[in-house]
Amino acid sequence: MTRTQAIVLAGRPQGGPVQPSHFASREIDLPELADGQVRVAVTHLALDPFVRGLMDERRTSADAMGGFSAAMAIGDVIRGEGVGRIVASRAPALREGDMVVGHFGWTDQAVADAARLHAVCADVDPSWHLAGLGISGQTAYFGLDAATPQAGETVLVSSAAGAIGSLVGQIARLRGLDAVGLAGGTEKGRWLVAERGFAAALDYRGKDRQALAAELAALRPNGVNIFFDNVGGTVLDAGMASMAARGRIIICGTISQYDRMDAEELAPRWNRRVLSLGLSIKGFNVFDAQSERERFEAEMRQWLVNGDIRQDIHQVKGFAAAPAALIALLAGELRGKVVVAL
Amino acid sequence: MTRTQAIVLAGRPQGGPVQPSHFASREIDLPELADGQVRVAVTHLALDPFVRGLMDERRTSADAMGGFSAAMAIGDVIRGEGVGRIVASRAPALREGDMVVGHFGWTDQAVADAARLHAVCADVDPSWHLAGLGISGQTAYFGLDAATPQAGETVLVSSAAGAIGSLVGQIARLRGLDAVGLAGGTEKGRWLVAERGFAAALDYRGKDRQALAAELAALRPNGVNIFFDNVGGTVLDAGMASMAARGRIIICGTISQYDRMDAEELAPRWNRRVLSLGLSIKGFNVFDAQSERERFEAEMRQWLVNGDIRQDIHQVKGFAAAPAALIALLAGELRGKVVVAL
Repeated sequence: MTRTQAIVLAGRPQGGPVQPSHFASREIDLPELADGQVRVAVTHLALDPFVRGLMDERRTSADAMGGFSAAMAIGDVIRGEGVGRIVASRAPALREGDMVVGHFGWTDQAVADAARLHAVCADVDPSWHLAGLGISGQTAYFGLDAATPQAGETVLVSSAAGAIGSLVGQIARLRGLDAVGLAGGTEKGRWLVAERGFAAALDYRGKDRQALAAELAALRPNGVNIFFDNVGGTVLDAGMASMAARGRIIICGTISQYDRMDAEELAPRWNRRVLSLGLSIKGFNVFDAQSERERFEAEMRQWLVNGDIRQDIHQVKGFAAAPAALIALLAGELRGKVVVAL
Repeated sequence: MTRTQAIVLAGRPQGGPVQPSHFASREIDLPELADGQVRVAVTHLALDPFVRGLMDERRTSADAMGGFSAAMAIGDVIRGEGVGRIVASRAPALREGDMVVGHFGWTDQAVADAARLHAVCADVDPSWHLAGLGISGQTAYFGLDAATPQAGETVLVSSAAGAIGSLVGQIARLRGLDAVGLAGGTEKGRWLVAERGFAAALDYRGKDRQALAAELAALRPNGVNIFFDNVGGTVLDAGMASMAARGRIIICGTISQYDRMDAEELAPRWNRRVLSLGLSIKGFNVFDAQSERERFEAEMRQWLVNGDIRQDIHQVKGFAAAPAALIALLAGELRGKVVVAL
């Protein structure tokens, strides 16, 4: 029996911000390895805003998606993607010392099915597998694909300075699209245009839906063809008001709404606009979009190695720093992908 | 120069119900035929609820879809699909006396491009081309296709006793789906189940969103895979609350909202549900979905001839009856497709 240190869900935010008290450090017992399994010592852990959504007790059938998208129970290890070194193996294809990436959770060591792990490329920094090559990169890549982007179209990206948003804009530019970013603060906007290839950026802070929609209309009078939304709330409403005919909206995140449990939250009705403009809206779940992972890895790796796409990795040290870093990430205080080095 | 009698838009409802005063009868001059054009004497005219949406002055970019979906100007002939007999032709493939179907509008005679007309089948009642084989049939057929229906799935249809809804349910049944109808009144529901192959039906009248959602949850505890919505408003909200994971929502009509100009109308936020359940939503425009018209005509015609699908045609006599019939249709007082015989 192997014991390991883990961080588990100790309480639920239920309509408020995440607090350190919602996390607890705990020793857990790992199961014995079965055939086809390995034990991994985690070296790097990715922090993801989507974990926030799994911390609430769901009142709907949302858990129907299952797997990594299901709500966590109290006492569950906090979910997350990580990189680790194999320390014991009963899988023929993997040996002690091999570096792998997988969904290990916030834990020093984990037992995993070899079939669900991916090899770390020997020639790149392991943390790339948690940024451009990890969930964030896959979400940006497959999420934009889901909108069937065409060269010359305009894509609007919210939370554009975030780990996913910045990659969406860069991939869109490489595919010949015009990328417009929404980010909190003018400094982030300047950085997106100067350093990350966005054609334009707007600061959404302190603006209501109408004001933001008016700025978007002035910036792109012909409207937006693709809206990749990570934010929800008034940002989504302003983007919806800016769509061109036959536009596609990818719902990828709802970070502005995470701390609301209010099922009765109201917003402008959207269905007339969807009908009259022939819009489509998709809820994008990266765990449902893994069928072309090899294409993704080949293309994205090349972009990263060539410097065509730049990833932003904010590294923090040590397991104990993870809860505070997640809280800062959710508050919009950090830029790029937050990775904990163990 | 040929003069003809037509009904034109004389006023806009702008936030209220359609009134007879919004229509005017007028003599209009038809242009001389150009090469490739024909003149048609209209024999049957279809009334469509979607015309209601074109009667308002749009305050958005909704006209971007263009063509038959664009708002009408004051003085425009009211738009509509019709069947007619060719009375003059400068198109090689069409001769005087041929029966054709096209978008002639509310007019005794019309000039049309031959390339935009379709031949009437000699062996079916011409009014079929305005019902099961017309826009209503195409909308039901291609709209359901757009939701990628799978045998065994449940499809929820609103305005299920309407010209489109009743066809959606019947096509769904033929494709092996479980069709649940929402209709106003228990009598329509009984008819849908007894006569039109729906597995179940609910009366939505007098129920708020929560009450209707609770009834749907009791009726189909595993949720709805496809929601084909013709209604909007609280019916849409209740359907959204009833979706199963990876469900598809087709926005086909907004009849409950037609008389509202209020851009600020509020509704429950939908994006968290779309994301957590991996839903997709499409605004369906039949004029954008004509690429497989031959497949549609072959399959639907066979279904109609075999009696596998039954169409409901409510015929009214004479041009002058059209405005009152449209008003009754919009008020939910008529069942099935309303066709004016000239």
